[in-house]
Amino acid sequence: MIAPGSTHASMAELNRSRIIQLLHRDGICSRAHIARVLGLTPAAITKITAQLIDMGVVSETGNLDGIKKRRSIGLQLNESKYRVIGVKFARTLVRLGVFDLGGNMESEQLLPPVSGGRIRETLDDVKRRIDDILASDDSIVAIGIAVPGPYLRDEGRIAVVTSMIEWKDVNFIDEFVGAFRVPAFIEQDARAGALAQSLFDSDSDPRSLGYYLVGEGVGLGLIDNGELVNGNLGAATEIGHVSIDIHGKPCECGNVGCLENYCSAVALHQAIVTGDLIDDAQSMTHIDACAALFELARGGDETALGLVRDFARYIGYGCVTIINAYNPAQIVLGDIMAQAGSILLDEVQTVVERHALPALRDTTAITISDLPVDATLSGAAAVAAAQFLEHPTEFVGQPND
Amino acid sequence: MIAPGSTHASMAELNRSRIIQLLHRDGICSRAHIARVLGLTPAAITKITAQLIDMGVVSETGNLDGIKKRRSIGLQLNESKYRVIGVKFARTLVRLGVFDLGGNMESEQLLPPVSGGRIRETLDDVKRRIDDILASDDSIVAIGIAVPGPYLRDEGRIAVVTSMIEWKDVNFIDEFVGAFRVPAFIEQDARAGALAQSLFDSDSDPRSLGYYLVGEGVGLGLIDNGELVNGNLGAATEIGHVSIDIHGKPCECGNVGCLENYCSAVALHQAIVTGDLIDDAQSMTHIDACAALFELARGGDETALGLVRDFARYIGYGCVTIINAYNPAQIVLGDIMAQAGSILLDEVQTVVERHALPALRDTTAITISDLPVDATLSGAAAVAAAQFLEHPTEFVGQPND
Repeated sequence: MIAPGSTHASMAELNRSRIIQLLHRDGICSRAHIARVLGLTPAAITKITAQLIDMGVVSETGNLDGIKKRRSIGLQLNESKYRVIGVKFARTLVRLGVFDLGGNMESEQLLPPVSGGRIRETLDDVKRRIDDILASDDSIVAIGIAVPGPYLRDEGRIAVVTSMIEWKDVNFIDEFVGAFRVPAFIEQDARAGALAQSLFDSDSDPRSLGYYLVGEGVGLGLIDNGELVNGNLGAATEIGHVSIDIHGKPCECGNVGCLENYCSAVALHQAIVTGDLIDDAQSMTHIDACAALFELARGGDETALGLVRDFARYIGYGCVTIINAYNPAQIVLGDIMAQAGSILLDEVQTVVERHALPALRDTTAITISDLPVDATLSGAAAVAAAQFLEHPTEFVGQPND
Repeated sequence: MIAPGSTHASMAELNRSRIIQLLHRDGICSRAHIARVLGLTPAAITKITAQLIDMGVVSETGNLDGIKKRRSIGLQLNESKYRVIGVKFARTLVRLGVFDLGGNMESEQLLPPVSGGRIRETLDDVKRRIDDILASDDSIVAIGIAVPGPYLRDEGRIAVVTSMIEWKDVNFIDEFVGAFRVPAFIEQDARAGALAQSLFDSDSDPRSLGYYLVGEGVGLGLIDNGELVNGNLGAATEIGHVSIDIHGKPCECGNVGCLENYCSAVALHQAIVTGDLIDDAQSMTHIDACAALFELARGGDETALGLVRDFARYIGYGCVTIINAYNPAQIVLGDIMAQAGSILLDEVQTVVERHALPALRDTTAITISDLPVDATLSGAAAVAAAQFLEHPTEFVGQPND
């Protein structure tokens, strides 16, 4: 294995990557600004930016007012020149979107709800839709796919999927990698969400953040030292299967008292049905049943409010674990349960205030994702976009030297 | 901030560092082997190794039988030419050792047990001992200090110390950094232990491992992607304050059901006293009381065995959390509780077998540290040695170009 920067060839790609990542993050920059931020010589900047312009990845924007009144030419990443397809697989929800490199979604498709028996049909449907998009859009350079965890990255399969065991039999690598004219990259859903927050939300800290997915499953993606915490098999940060109660109920994963069983949308849907809180809840999808409950709660219904707060308390215990176990600068809550908004966030903050290590808690921002698109679907796109930003020549070819 | 490898000067230091890290890990290597492993050109290797020999960091060993029968000169890191001082602060135990860069301890000093009122005296004693060693040994290049967590790296203080709150008032940066003729580096104890396992145990996987410290406190150091998981304040992986029971007893940290309260040596000592299992246990140090209990258990005493197994079960729950939360390739158990040996390890394995995610559990080795010296004390040395290996010129000066 050759580490980045160890040879002149890989150093050139590393510097190209660092420049386009900077342009991605900061928008239009002068060459002087890039040189200063990245510690590169003006000669190196001139050479590399010429290559990137030649490759079509970067373009000049005309004159900018630079530092010290010196006028200089602005450079920008051609974010809308390249597109990626993002696919989100949840348990019953499958969504697909076309994004530019800046994370802007240009079109979206929601597939019919998946049941245990319809997984093969759903996979074929997704592939057909991808083929259709690729046939009509030459600008697509990659596909990113987000799947529930624990996802075993090298094997291509999900180790455990509570509430829908059938997904376990799918080998995502066999299904998708190499199946199209562009490469496909697969990542665990919450980890994809963390990438989306890091790449597409300019307010977030790209060195240290957690994306806490509380939807049909409960997961975490954690960026530390500017990199995703991966684990040996790519299955780290499975917060949904960290026990919060060693005397708790057994989970399908083998553990007891797993966080996921206390606060997922599946568990909330079950509680709605059991409590008979919403008419016909049994026949609704998880997302619709939860949305209806949140609507009731926002309208002041005390029983609905109580139930949302009960679940929020457990989501808060999860935050305490995340803070003490990973000490991120920011926790971003997302997916179905986050749609409860401030009712949820207030309760979460109360639990965190009471139980997390004070020195860590006081420096951890807890917010609800404000990406315009669901962070996991954005995340699927981010998985593909991150590959482009890291290895641009693999997507657009080597520059002329 | 300039990333490693972004300029030619930092690239040169990066390559020097990578070469000495390779020699540190693999022992004697030929230039051809180094070139192959690091992807550097023979010309670059020739130049950089000449610099390292000139700096005195590396030396030639004479002829080796190389690949394809070609005889070549071996190179080795002069590990015993440079020494570091390691200091371990636990709650009541303070130890200090002189190590070479290979982690071999050459001398050790155990300070008198610390009580709440003797912290100032202990700090002054440590400084005096460091001064004495520095005065008599020119080969010392750095000092590494391991302290209980959660340690706030930028502030220099420990956020919470259960069972001995007085350590909270110490500012380790003010006390030690800049106080000597060589630099001092401070790290949380379990994180230092993980560095020791990575640097000084050639059987360990330097890309993915956890050091699970179960002593006076309970902590974790976790290496992922070849780097320590740090967190925003350097206080990540505080496994001792991750709750395993949301209905559990309150902890001094603000949380309830913290792992540390169920399985630390302090808690075991308390249980020994309460159960009246050992004469005069009350007046013993934690380490001595636990050692006496382990001795009884090994002798077949059923009550002692039962107590050790009870504690081991909780240590096992901690392993389940570590596996599901971090997915390391290896968990190394160390410190006082690990002295219980196979009685402990068997029970831990049973719990892990029952509760951890099967796909992750089956690929996670759980062992007891077999470093010749306590991993945290070795770790303090490793913190200093790692700095030397990463930035050699900061310790021995710039090479002649």
